[in-house]
Amino acid sequence: MIEQLAVNAIRILSADAVQKANSGHPGFPLGAAPIVYALFAQGMNHAPQEPDWFNRDRFVLSAGHGSAMLYAVLHLFGYPGMDVGELKRFRQYGSLTPGHPEYGLTPGVEATTGPLGAGMGMAVGMALAEVHLAAKFNRDDCRIVDHFTFALGGEGCLMEGISSEVFSLAGTLGLGKLIVLYDSNDITIEGGTALAFTEDVGKRMEAFGFGVFSVEDGTDAAAVGAAIEEAKRDAARPSFIKIRTKIGYGVPDREGTPKAHGEPLGEENVRILRASLGWQDERPFEIPDGVYAHYRALAEKGLRKSGQWKALLAEYRSKYPEDALVFDRYLSGGIGEEVFGNEYFEYEKKADATRNISGRILNELKDGVPFLIGGSADLAPSNKTRIDGAGDFAKGAYEGRNIHFGVREMGMTAIGNGILLHGGLRPFVATFFVFSDYMKPMLRLSALMGLPLIAVLTHDSIGVGEDGPTHEPVEQLAMLRATPNIDVFRPADEYETRVAWKQALLNVNGPSVLVLTRQNLPVLARSGPGAEKGAYIVAGDASSKPDIIILASGSEVAVAAEAGGALARDGIAARVVSVLCMELFERQTAEYRESILPSDVRRRLAVEAGGSEPWGKWVGLDGACVTMDRFGASAPAEELFRVFGFNKDFIVNKARALLAASTS
Amino acid sequence: MIEQLAVNAIRILSADAVQKANSGHPGFPLGAAPIVYALFAQGMNHAPQEPDWFNRDRFVLSAGHGSAMLYAVLHLFGYPGMDVGELKRFRQYGSLTPGHPEYGLTPGVEATTGPLGAGMGMAVGMALAEVHLAAKFNRDDCRIVDHFTFALGGEGCLMEGISSEVFSLAGTLGLGKLIVLYDSNDITIEGGTALAFTEDVGKRMEAFGFGVFSVEDGTDAAAVGAAIEEAKRDAARPSFIKIRTKIGYGVPDREGTPKAHGEPLGEENVRILRASLGWQDERPFEIPDGVYAHYRALAEKGLRKSGQWKALLAEYRSKYPEDALVFDRYLSGGIGEEVFGNEYFEYEKKADATRNISGRILNELKDGVPFLIGGSADLAPSNKTRIDGAGDFAKGAYEGRNIHFGVREMGMTAIGNGILLHGGLRPFVATFFVFSDYMKPMLRLSALMGLPLIAVLTHDSIGVGEDGPTHEPVEQLAMLRATPNIDVFRPADEYETRVAWKQALLNVNGPSVLVLTRQNLPVLARSGPGAEKGAYIVAGDASSKPDIIILASGSEVAVAAEAGGALARDGIAARVVSVLCMELFERQTAEYRESILPSDVRRRLAVEAGGSEPWGKWVGLDGACVTMDRFGASAPAEELFRVFGFNKDFIVNKARALLAASTS
Repeated sequence: MIEQLAVNAIRILSADAVQKANSGHPGFPLGAAPIVYALFAQGMNHAPQEPDWFNRDRFVLSAGHGSAMLYAVLHLFGYPGMDVGELKRFRQYGSLTPGHPEYGLTPGVEATTGPLGAGMGMAVGMALAEVHLAAKFNRDDCRIVDHFTFALGGEGCLMEGISSEVFSLAGTLGLGKLIVLYDSNDITIEGGTALAFTEDVGKRMEAFGFGVFSVEDGTDAAAVGAAIEEAKRDAARPSFIKIRTKIGYGVPDREGTPKAHGEPLGEENVRILRASLGWQDERPFEIPDGVYAHYRALAEKGLRKSGQWKALLAEYRSKYPEDALVFDRYLSGGIGEEVFGNEYFEYEKKADATRNISGRILNELKDGVPFLIGGSADLAPSNKTRIDGAGDFAKGAYEGRNIHFGVREMGMTAIGNGILLHGGLRPFVATFFVFSDYMKPMLRLSALMGLPLIAVLTHDSIGVGEDGPTHEPVEQLAMLRATPNIDVFRPADEYETRVAWKQALLNVNGPSVLVLTRQNLPVLARSGPGAEKGAYIVAGDASSKPDIIILASGSEVAVAAEAGGALARDGIAARVVSVLCMELFERQTAEYRESILPSDVRRRLAVEAGGSEPWGKWVGLDGACVTMDRFGASAPAEELFRVFGFNKDFIVNKARALLAASTS
Repeated sequence: MIEQLAVNAIRILSADAVQKANSGHPGFPLGAAPIVYALFAQGMNHAPQEPDWFNRDRFVLSAGHGSAMLYAVLHLFGYPGMDVGELKRFRQYGSLTPGHPEYGLTPGVEATTGPLGAGMGMAVGMALAEVHLAAKFNRDDCRIVDHFTFALGGEGCLMEGISSEVFSLAGTLGLGKLIVLYDSNDITIEGGTALAFTEDVGKRMEAFGFGVFSVEDGTDAAAVGAAIEEAKRDAARPSFIKIRTKIGYGVPDREGTPKAHGEPLGEENVRILRASLGWQDERPFEIPDGVYAHYRALAEKGLRKSGQWKALLAEYRSKYPEDALVFDRYLSGGIGEEVFGNEYFEYEKKADATRNISGRILNELKDGVPFLIGGSADLAPSNKTRIDGAGDFAKGAYEGRNIHFGVREMGMTAIGNGILLHGGLRPFVATFFVFSDYMKPMLRLSALMGLPLIAVLTHDSIGVGEDGPTHEPVEQLAMLRATPNIDVFRPADEYETRVAWKQALLNVNGPSVLVLTRQNLPVLARSGPGAEKGAYIVAGDASSKPDIIILASGSEVAVAAEAGGALARDGIAARVVSVLCMELFERQTAEYRESILPSDVRRRLAVEAGGSEPWGKWVGLDGACVTMDRFGASAPAEELFRVFGFNKDFIVNKARALLAASTS
């Protein structure tokens, strides 16, 4: 029958693609093909001709190594650009079919996956975005936001801790339109799951508050489809469908073995696969016309769905014209210039912690940027990330804009990514800066996908004080600045904090992190619009060549300026540069950069309560650093800043030593 | 009765310490005091006078913010140096009582905790070490390794994904002497657990394979003690005891509220606490003599236990003298010089991937370093970390030295730390280098604790090839080099890989990471003993001043040497330096460093298939980098190296451009 042929076409194309590339993961596609077929053919609303149709069901292949299978499906359904040539160029430079699915590259790929567990987090984020937008915009007679989110993963995704984090939260929030499909094949790379994974996964998921379903025969696409329908009807809680499959199905030499996972089958095994599936055509990548016709018909069904939704949206526009305008605004994500007008930069000048300032800014922006939503990994009172009066996002109160992520930094970040991938909202996440370590794997994906996630990271240095070295970031600035495509802001006062928020919100091409103090900072005398360029002069004469340049960021700018003043009183022309954001500065013209850091001024001193690594290229071989190249300690913050050299006298002495040394 | 007074003494001292510091977390200690009392007074074998007695039960305060409580207990039991003055100096510079417990600083503190969930992982590691050593050394009549491992944590530890990772593994492995105590107070910083954590924790733990017990009244130390005894009897599986407590117990204004968590109570509330506990003495830190006498008696009991163990060990020595010598050797961790003698550096010179070389070295070392144990996060066949013939570590086969961690990089790293904290073994962990992101929070703790964990991190660059950017590390070298106290090795061939393993094993003061290739590398003509210094000359004349220095590491050294050769043929004196380990090089004398990198040679070019951040300080303002400051791509590796400039011609051109530019 055609369905079986259609399923086998996915298997054949996956195996052929991996074989042609001589690289990739054939095992998962052979086992899971019936699952994606059940989803894409029946379970899911999707319109291949309009892959970005807003109300489509979302699908995340959390087991990203199954990419060949996803590409095969997208090809069979006729997604734009996904002709058979792309399958033949699987894993080749510049193709639409890279080794792991990449968001933004391949139509129909909803998320970049591969690092296991990440897709589960992103799917939860998508489901969360859906219920928020539904609560905000749907009317009883016009449910314009109303779709499911599906994720498919295997043992690896379930073993990664992030999946427990996000599933526990999804259960708490009752995200009933999230459906997780678990390809359970009992095999991991090192062997059977008995080695490391004998837990009762279904029971764990029940504990999280999921409805749990199972399909004993994963080769039965109809049974999978039936389970999906059952899961859809279980509306009050998220669903988990455990599907027993065989990795490497159809290849006796590989079936049910770890070898099936990450090695091409080999020509002979591909032949055997064709035989065991009863596949007639020996030619690689050749699919019977009937199969294509079958998929085309299914695609048409999707197009009707998207058409129906457009009609519904038109009805909404006529019935609720004002709401429709707001809906458009959410979807565009556009932030009007007026939000950051003159008023935005008018504020009372007083010493304050940049985390407090950030909290005020967030609350000033909440109406101007109504699609701003977010929260903290259980540190909102410390991170100052509460949006006042905007309600808690909770089961039965999905219109709330304050998300309580729980103590789950990694899951939080993946959820933030998922919200952005869904579209319609602009999320922020928050925790202590030192715990950006837990966020890192998912923040890397934000950067790789070009998602403008905003991370509010407070308690940014030894200024943490008594909590001690476990809570004092040292190397995190280096870690995030080293990651491509992330803008790292470390503001020195309110003006700079305002610039940081503004730049972060206006950047739509990648994540921004706001690194903020726990402790109060003084107002800089010369902070101002120069901050928009990432780095600018805050002390010393801008028009003449300085004897020395002191570069500093955040909480160290004021003390650097103080030191600069002391040097100036001794007749030394010291220029102090506040480096709000290295990445932003590097995007300025060469002329501007030269005007701030003249290349013939070689005495340069970097002052930052973090590791020296990022400063090497700024201070060069004739410069020096007053930095934290060791872990901190537990003591009142003022004492730590004194002990570790972040004070005027130490900086002045270091500068004098630099000036005294001859440069070669 | 005295027990109640003894429990309240913990509460009073905790509250007083936090109040005096005007900083800290009083809520947890007030609720959990009966739990630690039950543990330290009865449940646990420990000898305060001999805190490092090998067969003691281990205790990890995973909820590290409850440090004041732990310090109070250690003080009351008379742990060395823990006089009341230390409680009065809580959270002050140089005290034994920092904000969060710090291993190596405070006697009786078994692990540095604070980052939530970490302690759970370390406890699993300790329990794992115990069963391995027990399997190796115990005899039916002489069980010299035989102790429990306890961990105490709250909601935060259970929300962090790492706890699911390590508990799932502990259940699989049947670590029956692991007992996890869950202080369940239904409160997190942002509010009640209903906001983000409504899962059925006990059911989750059952799903993982734990025996689950519960204590409804956490103020009842005897009930907690009874549950602990019950858990001990449940020998076939790890145990989880859920104990209902009240955060901020005894202070009506704070009890059961988030405010109790991280704020000092205030003088008035401390008075109220004394009243509600019926505590007579108003003076801070004053404890009745009877209470001290009670604790002293308990401490004596511990000393008897350690004495009994010493007698048992003496019996073992006489009955099993050879085993006893091996036992001593395990405990000392000493690695004989002969292991790294001349033979170690004799090998067949051929092109190979450094991961393969590492796998061979590991297997050469397995007998010489019998206490070497470890494994991979389900990538052993790719990481080449299998110890042949050493068996799988599994339930009922704890003598196996190959640990299967499952796809749980973060948990794996915490477990590695726990094994080291336990003592007697030298663990290694492994995964793809890009997934060091998942390891980072725990690797930071390795570094902070000075634990010599070895991480084998393969597939170290765009050399990953077809798997694409999700699997291609770019910024990870910068991330780890920026972290204090980690030695990062990136060997260029077999000689350097051997040096890396040697240096990693001989370093007992901090973690080492071995960053290894997937792809074959040629044998360097001039690799040799210089590698022991971290960086050394591999091409060009060592005795004269070069025109340009090319610095490279790992897979880029050979192509850098090629480029150096091409430049030399054009009469340019190019020196090529292989930078095996920056940290090791920086520990060399100034003279040596100057001999390798003469400070007046300013044309310097760094070549590394990773981000440029770590190279700034080496190449300076007149240098340049051929590095990966963007994410990679999916294509065959050779193509990627070509596309991204890691080839002779590109490097030569870059060098020529540098030489042509005038230095200022």
